[in-house]
Amino acid sequence: MNYRATVYYLGTICKVVCAFLVVPAIASACFGEWAEILDFLYTAIVFLGVGFAFAPKSPKNKKLGSKEGILIVGLSWILVSLIGALPFVFDGSIPNYLDAVLETVSGFTTTGATVIADVESLPHGLLVWRSLTHWLGGMGILVFILAVMPASDGSAFQLMKFESPGPQVGKLVSKVRLSAAILYVIYFALTVLEVIFLLCGGMSFFDSFNLALSTAGTGGFAVTNDSIAAYGSVYIEIVLAVFMLIFSVNFNVYYMIAIRRFSAAAKNEELRSYLIYIVVCILAVAASMTSALGSFWEALRQSMFAVTSIGSSTGFTTVDYAQWTELSKALLTIVMLIGACAGSTGGGFKFSRAIVVVKAAYVTMLSSIRPNSVCVVKLNKKPLSKAETDGIVSYFLVYILLIILSVFLLNAFGNSFSSSFYTTLTMFNNVGPNLSADVGATATCAGFNWGSKIVMIADMLIGRLEIFPVLLLFSPKAWSKRF
Amino acid sequence: MNYRATVYYLGTICKVVCAFLVVPAIASACFGEWAEILDFLYTAIVFLGVGFAFAPKSPKNKKLGSKEGILIVGLSWILVSLIGALPFVFDGSIPNYLDAVLETVSGFTTTGATVIADVESLPHGLLVWRSLTHWLGGMGILVFILAVMPASDGSAFQLMKFESPGPQVGKLVSKVRLSAAILYVIYFALTVLEVIFLLCGGMSFFDSFNLALSTAGTGGFAVTNDSIAAYGSVYIEIVLAVFMLIFSVNFNVYYMIAIRRFSAAAKNEELRSYLIYIVVCILAVAASMTSALGSFWEALRQSMFAVTSIGSSTGFTTVDYAQWTELSKALLTIVMLIGACAGSTGGGFKFSRAIVVVKAAYVTMLSSIRPNSVCVVKLNKKPLSKAETDGIVSYFLVYILLIILSVFLLNAFGNSFSSSFYTTLTMFNNVGPNLSADVGATATCAGFNWGSKIVMIADMLIGRLEIFPVLLLFSPKAWSKRF
Repeated sequence: MNYRATVYYLGTICKVVCAFLVVPAIASACFGEWAEILDFLYTAIVFLGVGFAFAPKSPKNKKLGSKEGILIVGLSWILVSLIGALPFVFDGSIPNYLDAVLETVSGFTTTGATVIADVESLPHGLLVWRSLTHWLGGMGILVFILAVMPASDGSAFQLMKFESPGPQVGKLVSKVRLSAAILYVIYFALTVLEVIFLLCGGMSFFDSFNLALSTAGTGGFAVTNDSIAAYGSVYIEIVLAVFMLIFSVNFNVYYMIAIRRFSAAAKNEELRSYLIYIVVCILAVAASMTSALGSFWEALRQSMFAVTSIGSSTGFTTVDYAQWTELSKALLTIVMLIGACAGSTGGGFKFSRAIVVVKAAYVTMLSSIRPNSVCVVKLNKKPLSKAETDGIVSYFLVYILLIILSVFLLNAFGNSFSSSFYTTLTMFNNVGPNLSADVGATATCAGFNWGSKIVMIADMLIGRLEIFPVLLLFSPKAWSKRF
Repeated sequence: MNYRATVYYLGTICKVVCAFLVVPAIASACFGEWAEILDFLYTAIVFLGVGFAFAPKSPKNKKLGSKEGILIVGLSWILVSLIGALPFVFDGSIPNYLDAVLETVSGFTTTGATVIADVESLPHGLLVWRSLTHWLGGMGILVFILAVMPASDGSAFQLMKFESPGPQVGKLVSKVRLSAAILYVIYFALTVLEVIFLLCGGMSFFDSFNLALSTAGTGGFAVTNDSIAAYGSVYIEIVLAVFMLIFSVNFNVYYMIAIRRFSAAAKNEELRSYLIYIVVCILAVAASMTSALGSFWEALRQSMFAVTSIGSSTGFTTVDYAQWTELSKALLTIVMLIGACAGSTGGGFKFSRAIVVVKAAYVTMLSSIRPNSVCVVKLNKKPLSKAETDGIVSYFLVYILLIILSVFLLNAFGNSFSSSFYTTLTMFNNVGPNLSADVGATATCAGFNWGSKIVMIADMLIGRLEIFPVLLLFSPKAWSKRF
């Protein structure tokens, strides 16, 4: 266990995230909110203080193993959230520190659940800071640092492995650092593209900028109290739906397109099945809502937005989905449970894992009548190794047990069963809107008691970091020098 | 695939179950309900007709493999339920055949959910038939047949393997037939013992007999409209609670006691952990209900009954648990989810499986920081093989996917999410009472629509037969001659 390197990386992460505070500070300056700039300045001082205390100089041995990698990822996300919550407290817009942490964790984990009912009253700088946490958390704080900071390839791999979502590590090229840089370049380019498309729909630059950051991270924070309903524009809903889909797809596909290997991009099994599945869900929800809304086209419009928003784990809303028909809600629940594609900025269990889990269940059934046969699970037409399949099934096991634990805790804290279940699901999968009729998809999280809020914060972090980096912080073995 | 032997066994099962109709017929005779005897006679004719049509004479080759075993178990349970439902229809007490099948499946699978609000108005013979389906289904219809009918040990094992609950086959001695006989002797003796204890509490012989059959199978059908609340006796509640616990424990323990190997019985890890877990749950629910009920002792009395009733998957009620505090309901949900011990007559996921699944999750977590290490899961202080652990984890995988599917279907059929979830849980784990406040623990299933009822029937059968015998009926590969 290399404690020095672990602490050094934590300090470095604080320094880099501090640099991002410049963006909301500029927004504050543009809108003449000078008091706000001070809030960011104070926060920057805390970030830098911790940064230099932890990383005064580079240690000789910066080599990281699995254990260091997992601890750095878990601890850095917690640390950055704890400090990143300060602007809300300094400003006074979220006086309660726990609420501010919930908001920031919701930002970095790209959940998008908020404690603020009246976001329109927030200073512009804070709105930008909220959206920026989505953007940074979506692709990954450490992935960004890997892209800009020198580190040995082995050490970088340990960090990327534990922060990137999905069963496989999102290495595009053999060099980890180059992969990280390429990912961020694609990410930045797509975000700019979305800003342009939104501007074309007549949206202000400020709103376009914020919504693009929020969509890119598949987050869900909006800058209006009514989320996307405020714009009332079919064009904007379509642009957002398309970009939510774009950001919920494996970035590997865009890299393949960028290097002109179009056939490789088109052959991706996960991508094709994912698109078919999204279209089928949109049509099914639309059919189920037609009689309630009186028109198939209106139902299709709302369904298209709802399915892409929840399926990509973004969580923008145009209406309160919790009031929809039971069948629509049942479909949205499945969509929420499955989540986005691996290697995207989206959350959830991940579509490719869901495919493997269902195939593994089928193989298990067949082997009960043919006990000595060996059946294998295939993905992208290639057989997965037993270890890969087992790894995904084990992940499912831990995932379900944690969901059960979280529902139990929220239920025990006095929330109704339906509220406990949907709160767990939306937090754990980093979606945002709550499908429980007891809460409502457009409501804030402010009404939960403090115990529930702590469970929700834990759920979001565990969900975003795919369980192990957070859970292992509580295992003495992860901290021991010998293990 | 040996079709002749499969059909022969199905016919034989019908003949044997037909013999059991004598018991309710005697009850009808005792109470002078002569019209009722005719209903049982007509049902007997159907059973015998099918029996002799399927099994006119013994085929030469009666050898059964895994595939025949699994098909016989699945098909025989469906067949026996379809015919066993007839007395309710002939009598007119359940005019709708689908409802009658639901009642009979609920009986054989020892679920105990009923469609009849006023059970006190039922003829005595039908009440005995209901209780008897619990008794027969609890230990297993095929296990009974193995005990009384000659069959080769290999073939018998294939049947017992797929009907007995739990990850390991409940073979007490090396001979399968002798194991089956010993199991039924212990089962019969314990049932008689319970009748005696209930009679001592001043209960009528008729009620004692029925409740003992119902408890033995961990079923839950009562002969009064208020279930156990009707007796209002602490003594009877304690007797029932103790016997519900007794029947939810691995019968291996009683065999060990019977052959005087007391230390082996006491060393059983599952038994000891199970008892501790039940006591902890009783105390926790009692603590949570104390302020609502005004007295710790009253809370303890109700909690003791509720936790043993739901934990053993029996499902007797004294009050409407759905109205309890959220914490109590959360605890009861966990208790319902875990279920009874393997090798008992109880349902649910099974306690030993739950232990293995939690241990496997912990091992998975540790291996993420020590990727090349081999960690093993232990049970009863002996390490489980990788194949055994994988088998249980795979079972969990299929179990959870089916629960998700069932909740989705019930939700899609228009039930609320909470109702869909709790209906699935209580049906799948063969418990009975519904913890959803939308339905209520003391309510009947009569109000569900027909689509929901079909899902519930499937859930009960899939839950009781531990998934594969029912699910594989839908796989062409299970029917193919070659596979």
